[in-house]
Amino acid sequence: MTVFMADPQFQADGQMLPSHQARLAYRAGQSASTAGVAPGYVQGNLAILPEKFAAAFHRFCQLNPKPCPIIGMSDVGNPKIPSLGLDLDIRTDVPRYRVWRDGEVIDEPTDVMAHWRDDLVAFVIGCSFSFEEALLADDIAIRHIDCKVRVPMYRTNIPCAPAGPFAGPMVVSMRPLKPKDAIRAVQITSRFPAVHGAPVHIGLPQSIGIADIAKPDYGDPVPIADDELPVFWACGVTPQAVIAAAKVPFAMTHAPGLMLVTDLKNKHLAVL
Amino acid sequence: MTVFMADPQFQADGQMLPSHQARLAYRAGQSASTAGVAPGYVQGNLAILPEKFAAAFHRFCQLNPKPCPIIGMSDVGNPKIPSLGLDLDIRTDVPRYRVWRDGEVIDEPTDVMAHWRDDLVAFVIGCSFSFEEALLADDIAIRHIDCKVRVPMYRTNIPCAPAGPFAGPMVVSMRPLKPKDAIRAVQITSRFPAVHGAPVHIGLPQSIGIADIAKPDYGDPVPIADDELPVFWACGVTPQAVIAAAKVPFAMTHAPGLMLVTDLKNKHLAVL
Repeated sequence: MTVFMADPQFQADGQMLPSHQARLAYRAGQSASTAGVAPGYVQGNLAILPEKFAAAFHRFCQLNPKPCPIIGMSDVGNPKIPSLGLDLDIRTDVPRYRVWRDGEVIDEPTDVMAHWRDDLVAFVIGCSFSFEEALLADDIAIRHIDCKVRVPMYRTNIPCAPAGPFAGPMVVSMRPLKPKDAIRAVQITSRFPAVHGAPVHIGLPQSIGIADIAKPDYGDPVPIADDELPVFWACGVTPQAVIAAAKVPFAMTHAPGLMLVTDLKNKHLAVL
Repeated sequence: MTVFMADPQFQADGQMLPSHQARLAYRAGQSASTAGVAPGYVQGNLAILPEKFAAAFHRFCQLNPKPCPIIGMSDVGNPKIPSLGLDLDIRTDVPRYRVWRDGEVIDEPTDVMAHWRDDLVAFVIGCSFSFEEALLADDIAIRHIDCKVRVPMYRTNIPCAPAGPFAGPMVVSMRPLKPKDAIRAVQITSRFPAVHGAPVHIGLPQSIGIADIAKPDYGDPVPIADDELPVFWACGVTPQAVIAAAKVPFAMTHAPGLMLVTDLKNKHLAVL
């Protein structure tokens, strides 16, 4: 994993970073989708596992960097991840969590103080919001944003490399693009390997096991015009699906769309 | 235009460069396809025009860098282009030429000494052989090479920006690729803007005016499998088609597939 380091949480003028402000609001109990919150700052998927399973999950991420790019992780039992935000407390700073037992969601609280344990390890995994910002900045429209719905996501027949109890197919997100924009999107997202990088597929959904593009497994369907191709990126829902399938006795994640807002900047993730 | 500079024509061990050797053979009258000749060295499309038309053609190339990336040009009336090869003589070193009058080919000689004039300007334009080498080096198979035929090329409905008498649609070459390889090919060829760069289209030939993919306008058809997409690159045949359409009183080009072999190295064209 590349080690990213967040900016100081206060700006030169003494103002709080917008990302820090957002976390304070979530810490105080606010709860809403983080789409569009603290523009320019990296948001992440969250997975918290007991130490007993953390090594295997870490290996799973290592083996499957496109769906599971780790942008930060905690020490065992330590709820702080200063590389993502000096004050960040992983128990309180996500707007809404999911608590899993044996593969089932048993609670969706706004903090996990009551569930925290000394043996837990938190993983923060890159999220497509970062590369979507880069696409929008390049004047490439994103269909689900224009339609005001969630991005459509699909289970594929692309197997992840298994590690311990963690195994299963890659989940992908889909954005319809004109071919010219699809080519440009490959160039742009290739610069951001920490947030899923280049697409994993273009144009032939059936060949990656997607029977009906109008019926996503997660999120909402979006229209695809005759002069557009569906473009597929590895998706951060993959680790959550894999944790559910592994039916580990205990795990915690963010609730879909309610991500961890960090003090890293999206543009600082670019490799060139 | 980026100024490229060729290596010295003799290697450290005193041996001639393979590109230099090839040119000497063509200068002596040999004539054959240059496909596979002097691996690693840049080959180029050739266009020679009277000074009266050269400025407009130069502007056409400037306006349309994807089909017409200039990698070298001569001074007026000077048959040498030392930046592409110290000894290079543009009148003799191409295996076979085409001589055009009013848009018609009137001769296909192995040298143009008899046609040379003091008012001629030679343009050398990048060629897909260079990026094909980069694709092959990345283990991406190229269909027309495996089929031992010429690459299929198509006139599109993508207009070139006109300049003076030079105008017309972009000609593209097509290579069928699995979507995964198409994505990788975008990454690889994006590094080589001097030899057409990233594809201009993927997957929907009808939307760029190609009615029947099985009937190329130039070159030979190749099979496309069900799990492949046709991937289209801007093609160096474009300037030749544009010169023909302009019906200029006099012009010279290389004969298709019999290119100018230069002392530039393909790998030195990479921008990152």
